Amino acid sequence: MTHPSSLDSLIEALRCLPGVGPKSAQRMAYYLLQRDRPGARLLADSLQRALSALRHCQRCNTFTEAEICERCLSSRRDPTQLCVVETPVDMNMMEQTHAYNGLYYVLMGRVSPLDGVGPRELQLEQLMTRACDGIVQEVILATNFTNEGEVTAHYLTEMLKSRDLRVSRIARGVPVGGELEYVDAGTLAQAVRERRAVTQ
Amino acid sequence: MTHPSSLDSLIEALRCLPGVGPKSAQRMAYYLLQRDRPGARLLADSLQRALSALRHCQRCNTFTEAEICERCLSSRRDPTQLCVVETPVDMNMMEQTHAYNGLYYVLMGRVSPLDGVGPRELQLEQLMTRACDGIVQEVILATNFTNEGEVTAHYLTEMLKSRDLRVSRIARGVPVGGELEYVDAGTLAQAVRERRAVTQ
Ligand SMILES: [Zn+2]
Ligand SMILES: [Zn+2]
Repeated sequence: MTHPSSLDSLIEALRCLPGVGPKSAQRMAYYLLQRDRPGARLLADSLQRALSALRHCQRCNTFTEAEICERCLSSRRDPTQLCVVETPVDMNMMEQTHAYNGLYYVLMGRVSPLDGVGPRELQLEQLMTRACDGIVQEVILATNFTNEGEVTAHYLTEMLKSRDLRVSRIARGVPVGGELEYVDAGTLAQAVRERRAVTQ
Repeated sequence: MTHPSSLDSLIEALRCLPGVGPKSAQRMAYYLLQRDRPGARLLADSLQRALSALRHCQRCNTFTEAEICERCLSSRRDPTQLCVVETPVDMNMMEQTHAYNGLYYVLMGRVSPLDGVGPRELQLEQLMTRACDGIVQEVILATNFTNEGEVTAHYLTEMLKSRDLRVSRIARGVPVGGELEYVDAGTLAQAVRERRAVTQ
């Protein structure tokens, strides 16, 4: 035996973190035990508190400690617009733009047949129920412009159009400050195809 | 506010892991909460158990659940040889070679003036006491062949030589299976300088 067992278990447990293989799990375990025991204690406590406190908002599906999150309850947001994003991080990115003041729905994933994530696994009925509350008028699809994000957007468009809802997709194109020379050909092609008329 | 507080705390706590910045801490938190709650629970428990169970072996300084680790207590190892390594991982690497059957001392670091780690921070007196037990005859330095590892080996050599102990350094050279074409010049230069006489 090369490790005492509680060290073994810790190394094994650290591997549940995404992107952490056997080597880095070992490195993390030694680091915590040798250099940052207070940090390790804090991590253990935070995990336990988060696990018991956090659930999904019944309206927007993001993580929240209440039944319905503060954003969904806010009276200062436009309830006729519903923006669909893949993750809470994406929702934060949208918020930081200050370009949107409607409500959100967080998919907590994307349609990804290769990973066995279909419409059922994403629980899209919940989104349908949310979008068809009679108040929402426009659903803005802000899934990523990856293959999976595009498949997801396509799928949602089909579902939502059949319910008489206005569906839109955020624009794709050359990034602000982007130079044509450094933009990939696919992005540039889209930017040409989706060109807009210039008004005085 | 963009996050509920227990989520914030978890993201912050994950940053105590080495190599984990704000972005990956966020990704890890969402992953655990959304996709692997049992893993997160296991991690919290393992951290707590390891923190309370593990301490340093009074002889070799590695992590152990007992006062003195099993390896140090083994009667099948040669107590006249003491191999000094930087970390428990390095000790495991040495063990896997099956080329060494003596005992170990784990520095749990290396002399690194830039990081504020000097001989005092490494508690080298503990190694001196261990090496001067009257049984150890040879100290084998197996610190890394990095700048810091070399500085550490140099420092230890000075300290140990003054105590009338045989001090050796593991060999440096072309790796087994290595082709000269692909070995860096520094390594090759060392291999030439440290060439050994071939005996029939
Ligand atoms: Zn909500
Ligand atoms: Zn020991």
